[in-house]
Amino acid sequence: MHSVYFELIKEDPRSGARLGKLHTPHGTFDTPMFMPVGTQATVKTLTPEELYAMHSQVILSNTYHLFLRPGTELVRKAGGLHKFMNYKRGMLTDSGGFQVFSLGEMRKITEEGVMFRSHLDGSRQFLNPEVATKAQEDLGADIIMAFDECIPYPADHGYAKQSTERTTRWARRCLEAKTREDQGLFGIIQGGMYPDLREYSAKAITDMDFAGFAIGGLSVGEPHPLMYDILDKTTRHMPKDKARYLMGVGTPDCLVEGVNLGVDMFDCVYPTRVARNGTAMLPTGRLVVRNAQYAEDWRPIDEHCDCYTCRNFSRAYIRHLFKAEEILALRLLSIHNLHFLLKFAEDMRTAIANDTFPEFRAAFLENYETTRR
Amino acid sequence: MHSVYFELIKEDPRSGARLGKLHTPHGTFDTPMFMPVGTQATVKTLTPEELYAMHSQVILSNTYHLFLRPGTELVRKAGGLHKFMNYKRGMLTDSGGFQVFSLGEMRKITEEGVMFRSHLDGSRQFLNPEVATKAQEDLGADIIMAFDECIPYPADHGYAKQSTERTTRWARRCLEAKTREDQGLFGIIQGGMYPDLREYSAKAITDMDFAGFAIGGLSVGEPHPLMYDILDKTTRHMPKDKARYLMGVGTPDCLVEGVNLGVDMFDCVYPTRVARNGTAMLPTGRLVVRNAQYAEDWRPIDEHCDCYTCRNFSRAYIRHLFKAEEILALRLLSIHNLHFLLKFAEDMRTAIANDTFPEFRAAFLENYETTRR
Repeated sequence: MHSVYFELIKEDPRSGARLGKLHTPHGTFDTPMFMPVGTQATVKTLTPEELYAMHSQVILSNTYHLFLRPGTELVRKAGGLHKFMNYKRGMLTDSGGFQVFSLGEMRKITEEGVMFRSHLDGSRQFLNPEVATKAQEDLGADIIMAFDECIPYPADHGYAKQSTERTTRWARRCLEAKTREDQGLFGIIQGGMYPDLREYSAKAITDMDFAGFAIGGLSVGEPHPLMYDILDKTTRHMPKDKARYLMGVGTPDCLVEGVNLGVDMFDCVYPTRVARNGTAMLPTGRLVVRNAQYAEDWRPIDEHCDCYTCRNFSRAYIRHLFKAEEILALRLLSIHNLHFLLKFAEDMRTAIANDTFPEFRAAFLENYETTRR
Repeated sequence: MHSVYFELIKEDPRSGARLGKLHTPHGTFDTPMFMPVGTQATVKTLTPEELYAMHSQVILSNTYHLFLRPGTELVRKAGGLHKFMNYKRGMLTDSGGFQVFSLGEMRKITEEGVMFRSHLDGSRQFLNPEVATKAQEDLGADIIMAFDECIPYPADHGYAKQSTERTTRWARRCLEAKTREDQGLFGIIQGGMYPDLREYSAKAITDMDFAGFAIGGLSVGEPHPLMYDILDKTTRHMPKDKARYLMGVGTPDCLVEGVNLGVDMFDCVYPTRVARNGTAMLPTGRLVVRNAQYAEDWRPIDEHCDCYTCRNFSRAYIRHLFKAEEILALRLLSIHNLHFLLKFAEDMRTAIANDTFPEFRAAFLENYETTRR
């Protein structure tokens, strides 16, 4: 038995939705769930207590950023990421792969690994399955991720095939490099937008003894219908008894569709990033609180929301804070948006438990005004 | 009886220190006290609850800033500043005078008032005793301030005399303009660095029926010994039965000397401003947490401090947050610094109550490394 493992509680008979529990050394968490992102060992603008108050379960930190600053060795000396940032619940680190591949011209991929230049100071750096796994063992999150390549969109079939096969070999190296028993290593399925490669990758990766499985390389610029189609053609080849994590997805429409196709876990910077830009998430879409129309609007962001922000402050006040460039503005919308998405995941769990998920999904999509990120 | 009034509890027999209570419509507060500054209707980076947690009593907001943005009329429509920013304890607004006079070339003073240009958009604006008082009635703080001129340092005796006499006439106009019964209006004593003008101003202002009295025009660039000398020559002409507020002072050495000379209330942006710059306040001076020496320092900012920051986070983590330009860094040091100064005021009250204030002052000054702001 892995120290991190998934317990399937229920499958929705009328959709792909699943209800589950993810067991980790820092607690057992309900799925489907959304994981707030704390890139640099902090969920931007927020304290751990504010995350607990919104029932945040597992949060994510980025190995790439921590590898460069303050260094994973320093975090190890601090007693690990939980102790360093004083977050007592579940934690997941990615492998750094996604960020490294986003560097474009600044990195070079070989079978051995990836040479790249730091975005901070241009210094030469190196990551590969062994280094990324060691870095994540130093960080000490409950869930760690295999080092993979996130294939850009679009990519030709030849490149996608070559990359996906390398990601498979790298996955095996990560499993071999892993030494800590108290962390669960998740494999990542790639394959670009090609169903045959997705099927190959799903089978190859899930054949290995990972604690759970992620679907990578989606939400990278492709149209939503294509994303859902590829997601569907990926999850159908994944085992039912392990957690399924769709990486980098964080709008409610994508969450409800992901759950419908059998996904259990999500993460994205979207809620906190748009919050800092003055955009609040609503069940019906978005509210740009900077707009002049809210100057004398004394209502909360969402009258049906019970987050700290909506219980205490008006749209007019939050707009004033944004216009005056006050930091409290960023905090208040970050709290609202994360609360919204965590509550949305909870509502989906309730719907699955009550056998009403298809109706929940239909009603939500009916009212939601989709906006491209 | 004023709706805001001071109750003198005790005079220290061996110094000028006083113990008192300030009664306001939003609660009764102990003096000596320090008032955190919330310039734009928010104490920068913090929520009201964080201020309550550090036993913040009265906070200050700036009429100049709110007059320009979002406009005092909008705050009135919101139900006043307490409701707008959701702060339930005591509140004080200044008159805008200090900020307007700081504009230098951008303002013109006449007997009638001050024409100035907004620092936001260059628009022409006007403040005088009547407008400033109306603006503060719209804001609705518990304590409001007379519109005065803060004399620059240095200033010749002729200008200082002329300005101080005008401030006296303006003080009378503020009293006449005031209409709300639930606010206490404080007069402001000026006089520059001239003992004769301070005596004149103290007598002229305290002769009028104000709810309390402020000492303005100090801590404007003069050496500390001169400030203490002028403060001493001002407070000796002030009545014992009303609160004494030294404006714009917020380092612990200035607080302890102010209390020693009979001051009851203080305010300053210093603790929050230096916090955002990476400087923590300590009983012995300052700690610049960005410095490399703290990179692997796992101790809290101050091992004897029980603020939220010191109970939960290490110097190394806070340094990392500053280096990574994370907003949580600004929050954590703002909490620590305000907690420190509020606790320092509480410690002074305890010392006065225990008849040990002179010893408290001597021990503090012995250990404190003074730094010029």
